[in-house]
Amino acid sequence: MAGFECLPGFRDFYPEACAQRNFLFRVWTLAARRFGFQEYDIPTLEPLELLTEKSGPEIVEQLFHFTDKGGREVALRPELTPSLARMVGSQANSLKRPIKWFNIAENFRYEKPQKGRLRSHYQFNADVFGEPGEGADCEIIALCVETLLATGLGAKDFRLRLSDRSLWIDFLAALGHEGEAALGILGVIDKMERLPQEAVLEKLEPWFGDAREDFLAQVKTLVSIRELEGLKRFFGSIVSNAALRERLDARLESWERLLNDLDALGVSPWIHIDLGIVRGLAYYTGYVFEVFAIDGGGNYVGRALAGGGRYDHLVGRLGFPEMPAVGFGMGDVMLGQLLLERGKMPPLIDAPDCFLVVGGPAERSIALKAAQTLRAAGYRVEYPLKPVGFGKQFKLAGQSGARLALIFGEEERAAGTAKLRNLQSGEEQSVAMEQLLDAVAEA
Amino acid sequence: MAGFECLPGFRDFYPEACAQRNFLFRVWTLAARRFGFQEYDIPTLEPLELLTEKSGPEIVEQLFHFTDKGGREVALRPELTPSLARMVGSQANSLKRPIKWFNIAENFRYEKPQKGRLRSHYQFNADVFGEPGEGADCEIIALCVETLLATGLGAKDFRLRLSDRSLWIDFLAALGHEGEAALGILGVIDKMERLPQEAVLEKLEPWFGDAREDFLAQVKTLVSIRELEGLKRFFGSIVSNAALRERLDARLESWERLLNDLDALGVSPWIHIDLGIVRGLAYYTGYVFEVFAIDGGGNYVGRALAGGGRYDHLVGRLGFPEMPAVGFGMGDVMLGQLLLERGKMPPLIDAPDCFLVVGGPAERSIALKAAQTLRAAGYRVEYPLKPVGFGKQFKLAGQSGARLALIFGEEERAAGTAKLRNLQSGEEQSVAMEQLLDAVAEA
Repeated sequence: MAGFECLPGFRDFYPEACAQRNFLFRVWTLAARRFGFQEYDIPTLEPLELLTEKSGPEIVEQLFHFTDKGGREVALRPELTPSLARMVGSQANSLKRPIKWFNIAENFRYEKPQKGRLRSHYQFNADVFGEPGEGADCEIIALCVETLLATGLGAKDFRLRLSDRSLWIDFLAALGHEGEAALGILGVIDKMERLPQEAVLEKLEPWFGDAREDFLAQVKTLVSIRELEGLKRFFGSIVSNAALRERLDARLESWERLLNDLDALGVSPWIHIDLGIVRGLAYYTGYVFEVFAIDGGGNYVGRALAGGGRYDHLVGRLGFPEMPAVGFGMGDVMLGQLLLERGKMPPLIDAPDCFLVVGGPAERSIALKAAQTLRAAGYRVEYPLKPVGFGKQFKLAGQSGARLALIFGEEERAAGTAKLRNLQSGEEQSVAMEQLLDAVAEA
Repeated sequence: MAGFECLPGFRDFYPEACAQRNFLFRVWTLAARRFGFQEYDIPTLEPLELLTEKSGPEIVEQLFHFTDKGGREVALRPELTPSLARMVGSQANSLKRPIKWFNIAENFRYEKPQKGRLRSHYQFNADVFGEPGEGADCEIIALCVETLLATGLGAKDFRLRLSDRSLWIDFLAALGHEGEAALGILGVIDKMERLPQEAVLEKLEPWFGDAREDFLAQVKTLVSIRELEGLKRFFGSIVSNAALRERLDARLESWERLLNDLDALGVSPWIHIDLGIVRGLAYYTGYVFEVFAIDGGGNYVGRALAGGGRYDHLVGRLGFPEMPAVGFGMGDVMLGQLLLERGKMPPLIDAPDCFLVVGGPAERSIALKAAQTLRAAGYRVEYPLKPVGFGKQFKLAGQSGARLALIFGEEERAAGTAKLRNLQSGEEQSVAMEQLLDAVAEA
């Protein structure tokens, strides 16, 4: 019936799908806690202005937005970062730094639903505020890798492509392109992997004219570098003034410390230097990265599993004191698909510990008292909600997946006992009512 | 700055507030699981038609609703039940009954924010589908009480007021009022507690004319009954035809079984028979209940903590096969306030297990390896994200609330050890690197 289905791009989560989603939530939460991140949360609905201030008016195209009954321009959050920057910025003076926070929330975008991309998805976000050095980038990158490993993925399942907007900006500055021009050029680099060479050259023409082929050749050299030594050679050969040289040298030292620390944290095998990643959004200011699944041949498949980087100016741009920041987001859709494809999604095991088989009304009170006792002790207990014959109840007990059945018949009532049956082994024992909890614990 | 605050009636959850909210989520989840309920989830945004079909066009007044970019009339869900009925109804033939499901979700209403009532709140919902007998009502009511007890509330903190729309409908039928008239009268009864007697009498006039004072006297007698025997006497004295008499007698037997089972499940002390509760919504069809906090004098305080009842026709009304249903909702706002007022909200303890105190760059790699080892074993580990003097680090370790500090200095590096300090007792020991995990586990 029209109107009585989900909206396109939204999902009903039946118990199995819900358990799979919650498996991700649990892995995300536990990983963030091991790294010392605290959980926070933000509103689902936000003022439109907060979102356009971060991302520009173009973002409105992709939003679920409307005017509320009080005349406010509002939107369903498409991402977490602007709200997070508000929360941190408005308490900048009282929060102890570094601020290490994480969140799991639903985000909304009005776009054509397609494989790996829905109108609503859940995202894990972790961010560090208040620490400008690469130590914070390191912690964020290590958490991103460790989180994916905690899902059960391994060395051959994914790779984190590590890049640096700061090196790119300096490289373009050495070629005479700064400010808006540099951002425009990075916008082209961002699309390079998906466009034919001719189209890339045409887009570069306004800035490079006849030198566009030379520039593209340089870019191709840069994005093929996989070792720190290679980056050092590339940037060592760039003609630059003294200030720029000093900045480049300092940056390459930061790279060296970052890679050393990532190695010490055990995540090096997943880190691939890859300056081909520049992240489209203008607000990134330093290290940036994206994580992709890889196939058996080591090729990237599908959309990014996660992405993030440093964004040191966002808090200031919202009118709060400047505060350095670095973080990442990881969605549930691509990751869930990957885990299913690779057989890493754990099966839904959702069975009671104990199924109560209940005789007549006289036995029912005894059985229900037992249910309360067992539930109070933390056991998951089910019983038929209406009178059902014994045979049917044993069938229900079996279907429920319970390991134990507790049988309350006339005979047992007369003896002040219950019969405890192990539904796997078929073993049975009589248990006095006051021994029930111990017997179930030991069964 | 305008636009950079939360919308009115919405909340930013800083870590402490988030931990308090998550405490409720955890209690809710564990209680539902002990009772054998499975978790599901529904979309935040739904077709407007689904919501108006359940609640009538008046609901639109209270909704955040708009036309999406595809021309669809959509709304932020104000409650869960219509979506739940869709999910259950559309899989009615494949889901094993009874269907026992729970969910925790954010709901949205556009109304004036006030104490205990916001524009966004979180609600725990538990429902049983497919079982028409009072066994399902019993399970739902017991879960509602046990959930509140699991928060730490006790016998003197709340009461569940149990009523029955079906008895009301039969009572009104005996007086000659059925269908729309009966629903209209119940609408007045619903507001009786909050209105002056004059206003109530005026509202009853269209149906009862000069007999309105007699009717109101009868109603007052009915709503003052607190014992099953009283209900039996009251309904025994009602003049009715044979069919109605049979229905009333059967219903009072159902009441007897329900109260017996609630007693066996140990929740009787919280159950108060109170026909004054009729629940405004027309869709309830049988037992209904609301839970209120009580003060030291046993008086009800504030808005309901939870409420629910049986709604056997909703699934059918959405065009799916008829399916009996009973459930309840419990919000986070009133309950959170009550727990804070009564000192039952657990404090946020959010400290690392281990804080690493790190010497120079040579020690950093060793410390970070230790961090990885400990985190992989499930410990929560923090270390300074940038080089910091030893003295400052010990101060940070103390402030972090960590129980243990692991010290990686020059001396320790030379000896291949770390120093493990218990920050509570001040005790220290040297630990070989390969013994680290055991030493931390035993410390």
